[in-house]
Amino acid sequence: MSLKIQEPIITSVTELSPTDSKWVTLKKLTYIDQTGKERTWEVAMRKTRAASAGVDAVAMGNVLLHPARPPATLLVIQYRPPLDAYTVEWPAGLIDEGETPEQAAVREFREETGYECEVVSVSPVQAADPGLSNANMQLVMVEVKLGEKDELPEQRLEDGEHITRVVVPLAELYDRLVEYSKQDRTIVAAKLFHFAAGMHFAKTQAAKYGL
Amino acid sequence: MSLKIQEPIITSVTELSPTDSKWVTLKKLTYIDQTGKERTWEVAMRKTRAASAGVDAVAMGNVLLHPARPPATLLVIQYRPPLDAYTVEWPAGLIDEGETPEQAAVREFREETGYECEVVSVSPVQAADPGLSNANMQLVMVEVKLGEKDELPEQRLEDGEHITRVVVPLAELYDRLVEYSKQDRTIVAAKLFHFAAGMHFAKTQAAKYGL
Repeated sequence: MSLKIQEPIITSVTELSPTDSKWVTLKKLTYIDQTGKERTWEVAMRKTRAASAGVDAVAMGNVLLHPARPPATLLVIQYRPPLDAYTVEWPAGLIDEGETPEQAAVREFREETGYECEVVSVSPVQAADPGLSNANMQLVMVEVKLGEKDELPEQRLEDGEHITRVVVPLAELYDRLVEYSKQDRTIVAAKLFHFAAGMHFAKTQAAKYGL
Repeated sequence: MSLKIQEPIITSVTELSPTDSKWVTLKKLTYIDQTGKERTWEVAMRKTRAASAGVDAVAMGNVLLHPARPPATLLVIQYRPPLDAYTVEWPAGLIDEGETPEQAAVREFREETGYECEVVSVSPVQAADPGLSNANMQLVMVEVKLGEKDELPEQRLEDGEHITRVVVPLAELYDRLVEYSKQDRTIVAAKLFHFAAGMHFAKTQAAKYGL
């Protein structure tokens, strides 16, 4: 569990020059569109993308397999300053220089959850928020095989990370995310919500739409 | 079809001061974390969020129902300067001042696709990219009931929008997105990909995971 002595609070919001920022920058793009007309676009970019990977981040869609419990997934809940709220997400992290997406997934999953995982599949590169930023990511599906007596292991978090882990049966994922969304100061990340909504859609609309 | 005379090309990339930008700004947040320690975070924010809505955008997860064809969904492909690539997405747009998410969904769907749709459900508010920005959105599921002879209607695009529409059977959505991802200069938006991956997961892993 995270050490939660007090609720986080934002004390100041100041304009940030792209030259002074460390993590994120703001750029103006000028481009020639399909009709030959010159146009501009404003874009937020991470300053941290590893040249070797060309991809910012991985998220780990994970399945926990326990001999006596239904298949479940581990979610992380953390205070996210950009939203001034607690977000519900799958574990995720930036890809380091020289790492493959698989390596980044195994490392970040261990750091955030304490579990050793096996990679099941790696998605194509996806655009995180195409109108606003060049941020991109890959969804890495992983499995964790638990023994009868396995409990949540120790996290290996960096200083300043306060992450609460919750384990949710896969069959209840969509309903639980809807419930989390009703809680005060809590918001579900769009990628996780869309995955769960897709599962829910396939299960509930299969007859209606002939899926 | 979009008027595609030439491939778009980016001609310049310049640093943009948040005071000079119109659409996006960069802020430095100072906050007190759970342990009482002062920390900072860099965040990109849209300047356009309507005060009345408190939510930036809607995306329309859509089902086209045709009397003689399998249920399908309409995707939009457009050049996105932030990625210097063509993105494959569900229709989406910013919520205007005074609009409900339902109203924004019907208006934007008409503008981008030409179709009149009915709203089936509206999701909770979701965080688009929680580590990078405060951007948020709602997924609005909509249905379009087509007649036997309906073809793709006229779009009502704003100047500068060049959007190609493609209709994909729902049962083929995941495979088609994987195929699009292999095309040159083409990237699928993460929210759409995650929804399709969730559908695919529910269908293919149901037996293995007891879903």
